Amino acid sequence: MYTCNTERMIDKIAAFSKFGDAGRGGITRFSLSPEDHLARNEFATRMEKIGAAIECDDMANIYATLPGSDPAAKRIAMASHSDSVQNGGNYDGILGVISAMEVLETIASEKIPHRHPLTAMIWTNEEGSLFPPAMMSSGVITGRFDKEKMLASKSRLDQGITFGAVLEASPWMGAATNRLSAEKYEAMFELHIEQGPILEEAGAEIGVVTCVLGMVNYRIRTFGQADHAGTTPMKNRKDALFAAAKVLTYLHEKLDRLDPALVYTTGEIKCHPCIHTVIPDEVDFSLDARHENPEVIQKVIEVIEGIPAEIAGCKTGHERSWARDTVYFDSDLVGMVKTAADSLSIKNRYINSGAGHDAQFVCGMMPTTMIFVPSKDGHSHCEPEYTSPEECTAGASVLLNAVLAADAHY
Amino acid sequence: MYTCNTERMIDKIAAFSKFGDAGRGGITRFSLSPEDHLARNEFATRMEKIGAAIECDDMANIYATLPGSDPAAKRIAMASHSDSVQNGGNYDGILGVISAMEVLETIASEKIPHRHPLTAMIWTNEEGSLFPPAMMSSGVITGRFDKEKMLASKSRLDQGITFGAVLEASPWMGAATNRLSAEKYEAMFELHIEQGPILEEAGAEIGVVTCVLGMVNYRIRTFGQADHAGTTPMKNRKDALFAAAKVLTYLHEKLDRLDPALVYTTGEIKCHPCIHTVIPDEVDFSLDARHENPEVIQKVIEVIEGIPAEIAGCKTGHERSWARDTVYFDSDLVGMVKTAADSLSIKNRYINSGAGHDAQFVCGMMPTTMIFVPSKDGHSHCEPEYTSPEECTAGASVLLNAVLAADAHY
Repeated sequence: MYTCNTERMIDKIAAFSKFGDAGRGGITRFSLSPEDHLARNEFATRMEKIGAAIECDDMANIYATLPGSDPAAKRIAMASHSDSVQNGGNYDGILGVISAMEVLETIASEKIPHRHPLTAMIWTNEEGSLFPPAMMSSGVITGRFDKEKMLASKSRLDQGITFGAVLEASPWMGAATNRLSAEKYEAMFELHIEQGPILEEAGAEIGVVTCVLGMVNYRIRTFGQADHAGTTPMKNRKDALFAAAKVLTYLHEKLDRLDPALVYTTGEIKCHPCIHTVIPDEVDFSLDARHENPEVIQKVIEVIEGIPAEIAGCKTGHERSWARDTVYFDSDLVGMVKTAADSLSIKNRYINSGAGHDAQFVCGMMPTTMIFVPSKDGHSHCEPEYTSPEECTAGASVLLNAVLAADAHY
Repeated sequence: MYTCNTERMIDKIAAFSKFGDAGRGGITRFSLSPEDHLARNEFATRMEKIGAAIECDDMANIYATLPGSDPAAKRIAMASHSDSVQNGGNYDGILGVISAMEVLETIASEKIPHRHPLTAMIWTNEEGSLFPPAMMSSGVITGRFDKEKMLASKSRLDQGITFGAVLEASPWMGAATNRLSAEKYEAMFELHIEQGPILEEAGAEIGVVTCVLGMVNYRIRTFGQADHAGTTPMKNRKDALFAAAKVLTYLHEKLDRLDPALVYTTGEIKCHPCIHTVIPDEVDFSLDARHENPEVIQKVIEVIEGIPAEIAGCKTGHERSWARDTVYFDSDLVGMVKTAADSLSIKNRYINSGAGHDAQFVCGMMPTTMIFVPSKDGHSHCEPEYTSPEECTAGASVLLNAVLAADAHY
């Protein structure tokens, strides 16, 4: 078994944490922003240094490839993203890139033999922080998203700017022929932080990811009557916010009974007219529910469809925004990750991914899997996001050995 | 007893409904906007036609005064506002102006003798729709608001524009010496729509207003932990929106027991970060509670202060934004309104005002009172706002006779 180098990992984590440093221990690094260019430059410079060839495709995804012993063999990719959410942490996405770099650096410095070309890769705009949607370029590459629509995506901060304009101006724009594809690539691995507390609570250093959870997204609405806060007796009111509070409580009561592994979130709420002296006439909130088992998701849908048509004098409504089935990763690759962790005597457990990742799109195109490392206190998408250098290096070592297993397998 | 003219009222209501007509039966007429200039011109033109003298003060309030028989007597004012909320109705504010005009027109055409000069008046920016706060110029005139601060108030639509700049450019800007004051004015009446359902439900055409309700405003907050919607098990969550829903339900349960006349509203809610894939970490909502009796308001405060410090794993907090005591109108003037309605055989009842009005500020400066007319279905601040021509004319007739009673009294 080979292992990666903790000192080299620490150096890379520190280097990338500077690009978009928001001054409070985390970063803001939107895709293709000046901060992201610094990160991409660092990636390319370090990879060229070990003899990797740099290519970009038409979505500005970057590929750094070390040749293998067989010029005819397809490539094996290790990929994640370099962009972050606003005031995000130093690990989400970029740790997968750093780990891929570390794997190639270890292979180069230790001259580890391998037959397939091995590629470290950066996905463009996984977060969709500035230009929605998330997982934009893996969506395009795998044919889920229409490229023209993506190019027309407008900046959340400045509606005058499109993603296409930013892409066009980027030095990372390359040829579509360089895209990740089943013709050129054998498999893809993505190492990522867990973004939840499960590994930490289980005392495991590695999560062997088996699937990305199926989910369903709804908008739940209540409809009341806007009237004056001072002049409308309580008995005459139709308060859409009070009704929404009752619907929220109702949903928690019902959903909490379904299955302990179900997660559901009401993260966004809109209130109209949202003035302190006016009784709200319309409230709209999101419901995001995730579970591996489609039967549990079906039960969630039944609970939503069972919301009483009228609550607190207000009509209620619900509309499905979208849904996705559980995506299972390639069982061969999952096995290689498990074996790598076991062989390295790294405590590990199977885990599913509640979050979406580029890997779930690529999974439909070629064998794909993911490796999780622990998130301290389960925090992610925020500045306290943390994984220790030892855990990061353990993750890179598992990635290295799993990739070498895949190299031998294909 | 004198009575006003329904045809003339209908003509004025129709005329003013054009200025800012939003095409759906209502108006958008922000103070000192082009639409408001049309309304002010109409007011001045019609008032000059009956021999009233037009004056403006330094807050662009307009005064149209018919001389009385005693040149030394102080004036008696009838005032309301010409501005509306966004997509408001054709009655809020402007009906008080139209009624004051109708009173002067009736007095002029019927040559009704009166000793005091009588003034119809338009208050500037009562709604504060574009430039907060509401009741801006009565606040300045009565010394409640600092004029410089008001001039610096920024447009809600374009933060580059100040109220001062709009005022400076207005043709209605006059001298501070023209202000409504206790030296020049004996009393003020304000006729207004009820903006609630009480008169209609009671079958009364006139509300004899006794007071403006005391109130207290709070911000209620819940503090959770922002975590990923897909990766955080339910048992690990601190969901500030779920906690807020529980606090809302708690408040309704407790407050509904206090007093049937209490009105309270949670009209505004802010959720952070308000993203459908993130568990909310902070929610903040408004609570506005109104009642005539300060003991009931005190009980409301006790309920708020009794909110458990932790709900659904989230800390709670509350902060008082502001409070005001109940403002009682002048009992002599209230009596004159009651007598006028009774003498005209118009069904009336005592009522309080849950809404704020310029009259409540003026009340501290000189004898002041208000007259309410019914609001169909209780609606206001919206396009369905409606009071029938007959009810409007009944209101103007009560105003006329009450003003004549005041003319005789002072």
